[in-house]
Amino acid sequence: MRAYDCIRKKRDGEELSDEEIRYMISSYVKGEMPDYQMSAFLMAIYFQGMTDREISVMTDLVAHSGETVDLSGIEGVKVDKHSTGGVGDKTTLIVAPIVAACGAKVAKMSGRGLGHTGGTIDKLESIPGFRTTLTREEFFDTVNRVGVSVIGQSGNLAPADKKMYALRDVTATVDSIPLIAASIMGKKLAAGNDSILLDVKTGSGAFMKTLEGSVQLARCMVAIGENAGKRTAALITNMDVPLGNYIGNALEVKEAVATLKDAGPEDLTEVCVELAGNMLYLADKGTLEECAEMAAGSLKDGSAFRCFLNMVEAQGGDISCILDTDKLPSAPLTYEVRAREEGYVAHMDTEACGIASMLLGAGRETKDSVLDYSAGIVLKKKPGDYVSKGDVLAVLHASREELFQAAEQKFLEAVRISAERPGKQPLLYARVRREGIEKF
Amino acid sequence: MRAYDCIRKKRDGEELSDEEIRYMISSYVKGEMPDYQMSAFLMAIYFQGMTDREISVMTDLVAHSGETVDLSGIEGVKVDKHSTGGVGDKTTLIVAPIVAACGAKVAKMSGRGLGHTGGTIDKLESIPGFRTTLTREEFFDTVNRVGVSVIGQSGNLAPADKKMYALRDVTATVDSIPLIAASIMGKKLAAGNDSILLDVKTGSGAFMKTLEGSVQLARCMVAIGENAGKRTAALITNMDVPLGNYIGNALEVKEAVATLKDAGPEDLTEVCVELAGNMLYLADKGTLEECAEMAAGSLKDGSAFRCFLNMVEAQGGDISCILDTDKLPSAPLTYEVRAREEGYVAHMDTEACGIASMLLGAGRETKDSVLDYSAGIVLKKKPGDYVSKGDVLAVLHASREELFQAAEQKFLEAVRISAERPGKQPLLYARVRREGIEKF
Repeated sequence: MRAYDCIRKKRDGEELSDEEIRYMISSYVKGEMPDYQMSAFLMAIYFQGMTDREISVMTDLVAHSGETVDLSGIEGVKVDKHSTGGVGDKTTLIVAPIVAACGAKVAKMSGRGLGHTGGTIDKLESIPGFRTTLTREEFFDTVNRVGVSVIGQSGNLAPADKKMYALRDVTATVDSIPLIAASIMGKKLAAGNDSILLDVKTGSGAFMKTLEGSVQLARCMVAIGENAGKRTAALITNMDVPLGNYIGNALEVKEAVATLKDAGPEDLTEVCVELAGNMLYLADKGTLEECAEMAAGSLKDGSAFRCFLNMVEAQGGDISCILDTDKLPSAPLTYEVRAREEGYVAHMDTEACGIASMLLGAGRETKDSVLDYSAGIVLKKKPGDYVSKGDVLAVLHASREELFQAAEQKFLEAVRISAERPGKQPLLYARVRREGIEKF
Repeated sequence: MRAYDCIRKKRDGEELSDEEIRYMISSYVKGEMPDYQMSAFLMAIYFQGMTDREISVMTDLVAHSGETVDLSGIEGVKVDKHSTGGVGDKTTLIVAPIVAACGAKVAKMSGRGLGHTGGTIDKLESIPGFRTTLTREEFFDTVNRVGVSVIGQSGNLAPADKKMYALRDVTATVDSIPLIAASIMGKKLAAGNDSILLDVKTGSGAFMKTLEGSVQLARCMVAIGENAGKRTAALITNMDVPLGNYIGNALEVKEAVATLKDAGPEDLTEVCVELAGNMLYLADKGTLEECAEMAAGSLKDGSAFRCFLNMVEAQGGDISCILDTDKLPSAPLTYEVRAREEGYVAHMDTEACGIASMLLGAGRETKDSVLDYSAGIVLKKKPGDYVSKGDVLAVLHASREELFQAAEQKFLEAVRISAERPGKQPLLYARVRREGIEKF
């Protein structure tokens, strides 16, 4: 078998055999195939796509390219969740404890933020003392005792994906649905859960800017999960507007805690209940309606909040910061961004909001950037709100005065004020299952 | 400027600026850009193509990436010819002396064969003593005295093309019209001639298998040449059938000499007169008809043959082998391939004929293969001929008995016998000039 022939075949739109895909991925990961052949292959995939079978074979190879996690030491149904990433997306902090409070297990490995998007691990690390690296025993023990544990992704999980992603990142082959799907699902399959809920974000702050692309990606990932014998579903959720009102690491923990106490913003609460309900459904805890009710109930009766508190304690975090979130890291300086004109907030470019937050120190420009956990943005107005000239649109939080100017400018670029009231956007667009798509 | 952005732009079908193309090619040739970014870029070009402006900029960079030849030391109009390669294509051996005999100058650099196609330099080297490497002075002096000299391509001509071609060869990005055009024309522009005639072969033995692809390639190359200020035209000629009856190095010299003595096969003579006529026209020697007449006349009056003889002598070749071609290297063994059935020879897959010849030792399987100058095939029947069972289709020439079996099998695979007489194929399809296409 020759790499050349596999590249040519894909270039010409032919379907590759299992053996051909295995040959390409394995020899690349083993270092037997040079980067330049893999990058030509990836670009050919960008243009020609892959069939569901090809994607499943590729994903399986990615999943088995390194360590795979055996979660059988944890009792009960283990259900995973993955978000394609967004701005202000603190849902894992809320959804994981809800699901645990309702009787399913969440043994979750999460990632860090990059660019305009945040990462769950960074958010958790803004809680003083919180450890995101646990031994296998500590991880299993926490999940068995508390019902939930969230840790950083192991270094040797799906190394094929790491190697291929690094190449895609410099060859303009990231935005390919089959490659994104194989990358995400390769890691999810290696993580060893029984069921997987995918939160595919769509809109200006999401990786997928269009609903059509998001649905395609969701279908593709659901097919991979189901083909691998996992119960898998996806929700397409709105990321055209930041989720909730707080952006930044400690700021998002604060808002997550409020939401777990049933005092969070409506949009965030609604999305979290829907996500948790779907996870519980995939864990066979009842019908979709029953599961959503259970999820909402766990916020009202405080059980989800207690699960979160227990997890923070089990992972070494300072629970006094959770009991009183004013004790979380907070920025020494704040700055009010005011409206330059009057009218309705018509749109908030969410990627630009994420970049403004990054500029304040809350995000990473490169993988080596150092985070300021206290930095970020608190939105005072959201799309649909009416503002007068001079009204506060948002409060910026930072540790150095000189960061405000660029962040304010970026933030103002993101906000469009209009005389017309914008139409209300849905929070949830669709649920994608193997059987088909249901629109909300 | 970043390679990533240029790759993405091309991937998305946008047109690159001159600076962007310059950045990509220059930094790759300087070794500042890794192969994996160039291969992704080339694959994106494969799918998205390039505009005429982009191709001209790229070609100019290729042409100036190394040494460029200054032919101003040669008097008169210097006219070049390039064939996209085929089987039995000995036209340069005939056309170059015709053009010289008719008063234009041919200072030609040619290549070697690879795979199923032959190369002019290999053919010339089958003449004992013939030197294809001359000093600049010897080369210029030969052209000034004799009117024609054919040498091997200098090692430092268009090194960008060498580097990119090696990468394309292993990443399935060879068959892209803009890349083929930039590669060929980059070398032609570096070679310093005033006018260029392109012989774009089409059919089963050609690089371009379809007429449509051949016309596109021709148009693209003519546009590059004219944009660079060279008078440029292309002929689309038939390579669905081997040209002439002899395939192999010394065998083709033999047939070329016969043709120069006006005793060659009709098809080869017709194509050579047309090619030479067009070269003379590009050298401003008259109207197309006048030029074709001059070309045919130089075969009849022996002046073309004398030019060839003078060139062989000037380049150290043994002219007794030209005066009596039986003295050229000749194979110790021959083998007759006979028809297995009766009927019309309906088709001869020309690539397969070329491979059969290669298997006999006349061609190179890899760049390092050693040639047997005496090996090859003499066709006794061609498409349209009627054969009875047992008639000799071809005579194979080789130096080792054991080579015949595989070559015979390959040759028989190439030949299709049918009860129906096949339609006659044209030898020449079209002439492509900047002004448009004329069909023959």
